[in-house]
Amino acid sequence: MEPLTRRIQRDIEQVGRFTKPGPGINRLSFTAEHMAAVDYVRRELGAVGYEMRVTPHGSFRFRKAGCDWSKPAVVSGSHLDAVPNGGRFDGVVGVVAAVEVARLLAQQPCRVPYEVIVFSEEEGSRFGGVLTGSKAAIGLLRREQAAQLRDAGNTSLLQAVESSGADTTDWDRAIFRPGDVEAYFEVHIEQSVVLEEKGFTVGVVTGITGIKQYKVRLTGVANHAGATPMPPRHDSLATAAECILAIESIARQAPGASAVGTVGYLVNSPNVTNVIPGETFFSVDLRDLDMDSLESISASVVSRIRETAERRGVAADIKLSGEARAVLLPDRTRIALLEAARAAGVRFMEMPSGAGHDANLMALVTDVGMLFVPSVGGRSHCPEELTSYEDIAAGTDVLYRAIKTLVC
Amino acid sequence: MEPLTRRIQRDIEQVGRFTKPGPGINRLSFTAEHMAAVDYVRRELGAVGYEMRVTPHGSFRFRKAGCDWSKPAVVSGSHLDAVPNGGRFDGVVGVVAAVEVARLLAQQPCRVPYEVIVFSEEEGSRFGGVLTGSKAAIGLLRREQAAQLRDAGNTSLLQAVESSGADTTDWDRAIFRPGDVEAYFEVHIEQSVVLEEKGFTVGVVTGITGIKQYKVRLTGVANHAGATPMPPRHDSLATAAECILAIESIARQAPGASAVGTVGYLVNSPNVTNVIPGETFFSVDLRDLDMDSLESISASVVSRIRETAERRGVAADIKLSGEARAVLLPDRTRIALLEAARAAGVRFMEMPSGAGHDANLMALVTDVGMLFVPSVGGRSHCPEELTSYEDIAAGTDVLYRAIKTLVC
Repeated sequence: MEPLTRRIQRDIEQVGRFTKPGPGINRLSFTAEHMAAVDYVRRELGAVGYEMRVTPHGSFRFRKAGCDWSKPAVVSGSHLDAVPNGGRFDGVVGVVAAVEVARLLAQQPCRVPYEVIVFSEEEGSRFGGVLTGSKAAIGLLRREQAAQLRDAGNTSLLQAVESSGADTTDWDRAIFRPGDVEAYFEVHIEQSVVLEEKGFTVGVVTGITGIKQYKVRLTGVANHAGATPMPPRHDSLATAAECILAIESIARQAPGASAVGTVGYLVNSPNVTNVIPGETFFSVDLRDLDMDSLESISASVVSRIRETAERRGVAADIKLSGEARAVLLPDRTRIALLEAARAAGVRFMEMPSGAGHDANLMALVTDVGMLFVPSVGGRSHCPEELTSYEDIAAGTDVLYRAIKTLVC
Repeated sequence: MEPLTRRIQRDIEQVGRFTKPGPGINRLSFTAEHMAAVDYVRRELGAVGYEMRVTPHGSFRFRKAGCDWSKPAVVSGSHLDAVPNGGRFDGVVGVVAAVEVARLLAQQPCRVPYEVIVFSEEEGSRFGGVLTGSKAAIGLLRREQAAQLRDAGNTSLLQAVESSGADTTDWDRAIFRPGDVEAYFEVHIEQSVVLEEKGFTVGVVTGITGIKQYKVRLTGVANHAGATPMPPRHDSLATAAECILAIESIARQAPGASAVGTVGYLVNSPNVTNVIPGETFFSVDLRDLDMDSLESISASVVSRIRETAERRGVAADIKLSGEARAVLLPDRTRIALLEAARAAGVRFMEMPSGAGHDANLMALVTDVGMLFVPSVGGRSHCPEELTSYEDIAAGTDVLYRAIKTLVC
């Protein structure tokens, strides 16, 4: 085994030890387990000459001791908090890769500072929401909001951040603004099966898909399943079924390969075997890298739901419940990763990112580059989550080569 | 208003007074409210010379005092128990119609005894199941089973029946066997919209549809809705959606007008907006008057579910969960009702019965005739349940004319 792979394995295994008992990893933000994982990173980086600063939002930043902290850095990192019963790789891979890059750069003179960052509460499993730490880091979550977010024990996010050693006074001022960060890179597990099925080791992210989410309520007429003939029925579940297939078909037929459409949530009422459903709620989640295509898909989906409901004599209430614009990753960071992948000789493909990562928010203030490494069976957020140490090492090598071109 | 309509209105309104407070009617079997409703029937029939016998199963039988109880009778009735927050008409209409026939026959000499019967626990709302009283009456629910059925307060059905004044010793012997009942007639609210939409006052039931019910579990692969492209998905909810539309289409295209197919129950997992569903459970309820057609519909549905799941890489587990054979109602009782309807000059149609009624079980031991009267808006099992007193009176008149030809 390569020394790089061995170090990656040791780091992942060591971080995996910081967990509450139970199936999988249990490491909520700012708990003793989480702080122990951060401390592991601090000690590893301390050993190669890095010092730590805690931000007012409970992010943990590492640069070479004695460097100029006011100078924009090339930053890399991810998060160490986990969903309950989660896996050992989500977030951890990005932190471990960034730590390894710090080790490899430790003895080299750099034009531009290199920084490792560990965001907190990326999963939102303790205080709700998602990407909470990176939101706060770029000014999208203010101090007064942090004082109101509460965990199950009624501790506020602000209190939890302060317990991690942060001085939160400058919460609203000490944020990353455009120009403050030279570039941001993140390695993350893919959380799906594309790399594995196509046989690639690394995915270079082309852009972050835009999202449109809807909540739909269909109101038909509940009636006796035995006593009511087929033609006069107003079945809200059968109507929903037609909508679900239409959404699937619209997403499949979209021009770009990055379009996806999902109905993940459905609740039916009265939900009794011998009663025709009278009310059915469902969610719609649409994503595409091309915003024009996303708008066109969304319009098709909404009009197909309306048309289907009307034809079946069912009332449709459709509400936009979430929205995010697509971000195409800039040439500078994207091409640096592509060239590094070519130079490293790994099998790589270009692909969009459809999930939420800290990189999505950092993309609002700096040039972002992102790499995916394969998830075995696509499993994530579960104890079975797995990525091979060789693949993580390959991704780390690509990350190192790309960052080196920007900092040295 | 006709005197008949006036008496019907008074009976319905009086029985409607026997309820616990709350929206709609609350009258569970063998409670004080239920027994008060039975007592109202006893007093009304007592006033025209009828006596009551309580069966070992807690059914209430009424014949002219001094008659020969061993002689097979033409029986009519229904039930007085109600679902929680139920309506004033379900069951009550059949009892009130039978009581009115008893009044009309009271002074007439009869060749064959006429009997009114009030079944208990038709709805199963107190002890679970359905048609419990009529099941017991024909020997399909034994005494030892009745001792095990418990209500929410842990009282057994057997104890509740005994509290109504029944001697349960002969539970398993004192049942209706073929030959014991000359014929059974029941008037019931339609509980759907067919009569109302077609403008008929009375529906003469041609037969009771057979039923096949299935429980289906589809197991796909849960995955990130953003990170997983469309083609390699194994979405259990989209698979269920395709099955639901196939079931609807198969039932609509069945040769007989009585075929219906319903998915009333669906539960989806993990049921999260941004996760592709990995497991979806749903029910299938298929009914038809023609058993050959029902078997053919069932086979088509099962094979379409299997084919759909296989094509989508989803595992399908399909279990038969309920089954009842169709019963074509015999000419003797059916034609008696048709001729009575013609003689009465009411607008009537012939139609199947797709719901569960005491008549369905009585059809296993004797010739059954059944009449439907219109449900306003098809509503039933709710406070809004409504049938006009004129329509109930018209149905009662048809019932009286039919029974008279058989008993006098």
